[in-house]
Amino acid sequence: MTWQTYLETNQAEFTARLLDFLRIPSISSLPEHAHDVRVAGEWVMAQLRNAGMEHVEMMETGGHPVVYADWLHAPGKPTVMIYGHFDTQPVDPLDLWDSPPFEPVIKDGRVYARGASDDKGNMLAPVLALEALLKSEGGLPVNVKCFFEGQEEIGSPTLPGFVAANKAKFACDFVLSADGGQWDEDQPALLVGLKGLCALQIDVVGPAYDVHSGLYGGAIQNPIHALAAILASMRGADGRILVDGFYDDVVPLSDADRVEMARVPFDEDSVLRELQIDAFFGEPGYSTLERKWARPTLEVNGIWGGFQGEGVKTVLPSEAHAKITCRLVANQEPRKIAQLLKAHIERHTPPGVRVTVTVKDNGAMPYLMAGDHPGNLAARDVLVEEYGKEPFLARSGGSIPVTAMFLESLGAYTVSFGFGLNDERQHSPNEFFRLENFVRGQRAYCKLLHRLAAG
Amino acid sequence: MTWQTYLETNQAEFTARLLDFLRIPSISSLPEHAHDVRVAGEWVMAQLRNAGMEHVEMMETGGHPVVYADWLHAPGKPTVMIYGHFDTQPVDPLDLWDSPPFEPVIKDGRVYARGASDDKGNMLAPVLALEALLKSEGGLPVNVKCFFEGQEEIGSPTLPGFVAANKAKFACDFVLSADGGQWDEDQPALLVGLKGLCALQIDVVGPAYDVHSGLYGGAIQNPIHALAAILASMRGADGRILVDGFYDDVVPLSDADRVEMARVPFDEDSVLRELQIDAFFGEPGYSTLERKWARPTLEVNGIWGGFQGEGVKTVLPSEAHAKITCRLVANQEPRKIAQLLKAHIERHTPPGVRVTVTVKDNGAMPYLMAGDHPGNLAARDVLVEEYGKEPFLARSGGSIPVTAMFLESLGAYTVSFGFGLNDERQHSPNEFFRLENFVRGQRAYCKLLHRLAAG
Repeated sequence: MTWQTYLETNQAEFTARLLDFLRIPSISSLPEHAHDVRVAGEWVMAQLRNAGMEHVEMMETGGHPVVYADWLHAPGKPTVMIYGHFDTQPVDPLDLWDSPPFEPVIKDGRVYARGASDDKGNMLAPVLALEALLKSEGGLPVNVKCFFEGQEEIGSPTLPGFVAANKAKFACDFVLSADGGQWDEDQPALLVGLKGLCALQIDVVGPAYDVHSGLYGGAIQNPIHALAAILASMRGADGRILVDGFYDDVVPLSDADRVEMARVPFDEDSVLRELQIDAFFGEPGYSTLERKWARPTLEVNGIWGGFQGEGVKTVLPSEAHAKITCRLVANQEPRKIAQLLKAHIERHTPPGVRVTVTVKDNGAMPYLMAGDHPGNLAARDVLVEEYGKEPFLARSGGSIPVTAMFLESLGAYTVSFGFGLNDERQHSPNEFFRLENFVRGQRAYCKLLHRLAAG
Repeated sequence: MTWQTYLETNQAEFTARLLDFLRIPSISSLPEHAHDVRVAGEWVMAQLRNAGMEHVEMMETGGHPVVYADWLHAPGKPTVMIYGHFDTQPVDPLDLWDSPPFEPVIKDGRVYARGASDDKGNMLAPVLALEALLKSEGGLPVNVKCFFEGQEEIGSPTLPGFVAANKAKFACDFVLSADGGQWDEDQPALLVGLKGLCALQIDVVGPAYDVHSGLYGGAIQNPIHALAAILASMRGADGRILVDGFYDDVVPLSDADRVEMARVPFDEDSVLRELQIDAFFGEPGYSTLERKWARPTLEVNGIWGGFQGEGVKTVLPSEAHAKITCRLVANQEPRKIAQLLKAHIERHTPPGVRVTVTVKDNGAMPYLMAGDHPGNLAARDVLVEEYGKEPFLARSGGSIPVTAMFLESLGAYTVSFGFGLNDERQHSPNEFFRLENFVRGQRAYCKLLHRLAAG
């Protein structure tokens, strides 16, 4: 039986397995779901064993675990490491979901669930490709290692030390990342750039308790107003970030980069319609795509303080809080940016409140790789065969912290080879994944491994 | 039996009644507690009937009800109307309470519960005074009407029309308000000024759903950042409100006013210690007391939007919200101030979001009365007898909307005659009331009614 036939024969079964995977609420940012992340890892291990992979194990990282496996019986052939993650984002606001986030529903060829696209559907595809190749051909065309993690959605905080401590085990020519996507249903893309990440929380404390706004209003500092002033001070009315030194290490866009990006069609109107907003907004002097791909950003992810109930409560609150994440580009360094933000916040803290700034994780380094890397060239050939089109050389505003880690610790670049699409509401209510691309992913990985063997 | 003996004999019983009153969760701002507000009103009616008052009834207002009663058998004597409210503030943040807010606890001569000081303890005192006089003397020294409401904590939205429609019934020489306090345990005060109130909510809407901050961060407007900019634009770094026209109608402090206020001792250090803050903050050119008493304020009461959970969630949120209340002074008009705020917010709304401003109620007019009003002179005499000290002529940053209503509809000024103290955490967790002042209130009302009869 060929791997093609194996995939066709087992597709219904594979879809059922994906639904099982999606039923595990493996939210890595919430302590109460830490066990579920582990359960998802064990589920992946069972898949790898069933596929015929060897040395399947759960490796402790000091945080959420990593699932490893390998098959290394192709002497003289390259060694690639397949990457993906089995943890998911939180689900709130829950009331905006049409169906429970961890009770997957299939509708019009799409499976709806938290993690369907980011990244469970995408990461399961290569696992099934390995199964198809091993069951149909008795082996793999190249040497393959698998590295599936459970902490991508929180910035992989414990992986840097873990990867550095296991260099020999994870040694490979390059990495194939199943955490990525294509341009749209008809247009492939090769991802050559990713943004880094830096996250922090601002806690503002004023009076020891909420006080009557008529009793002390106008006479003491209001923590919410203080926080608003701090946040407002970080960004100009034009969208430019005003934190001193924020842009210092940014690699400017070359004219060639800007020409390449300008060639990429980006339907602004359809995005405006989809998001139901009337205008884009961002740093002056750059196109929307350039802002998304090549410029650093600072976003407030959440804010809270004082009375949030119905009606009126005339209090001057005791506390106010905000969460911020910055998306970084080459060559910004997360720890340095966090320090710049801290310094800015301290300089802009008004009198009468105490402000604490907490850096939430180690952050993630930004990432850039060459379009003509051997892995990209092979991936390009498969994508052209699958889509009949030349892929765009794309970048992403998203972060995949391990890419920078793999480069730093293993000297291995990461080729993005995933099949999610940007409209699949990753991190939002009603996330979904196209089953058609689930199948395509399995097929494309089989083709890619064969092509890499051909060299 | 004298009224003095009656009060002494029944004090334990009166305290037990106060605890019953405090067990009713009559939160007027929360629809789910509307019934409890009514239950509290019925409880007050039973007290009035038992006291021997006549024509006790619950009057519908189109909102929370008003409890009325009268005793009008003192021909040729003045007619006074006693005012108080049986509704309370909400209780959150609940986790900061040492005991459940509606399960009163007596500790060191203080009763701890939501509404203990504001206003159940204060309003029950005159009711018990009426009981003592009627039971011991068979009548009252003057003609008395009672007007107890259930919507003071939400700005008495339906009372203006209600009072205007019942002018004859509520006609009186002046009002005695049991919703007020004294300067401290040893120092009396006569309240001659109250602030008005204007409340609104700002709702900022951006993308139709929370989006991946890496996908659209830096490319579309962030509703939280937009809200922060709007709030920051309303107040200067020095604390001055920057809304055009905000101060236009403010009656400036006369030199005499400032001298009178400067004579009032205000222990700034003890307030800083109590609130655990290191500095006061407010409009330049005014003392803390002047800011609290005679200058208008704008405070953010609450703010919320995006991710508030533990950990990191890299979203650009769909919505952000804030609640604001302004405390107004003579002669600012709540509706006009609300319009100025709306205009300011519209002018300062950045591109890429939709902003809705909702005025939360009709607001409350500010209030000022003469220190030598006959009611104030009689009250002064009782306070001097009770405390052995001349009362301060004080003002409050708080609002009692009905005072302006009574003046407008009935031509009646309101003499503040209550016994709460500012440290009793009105509107905050662990609100309490001093039982000693509960008794003093009963005694003082008996004395005051007799003194008013003497004329």
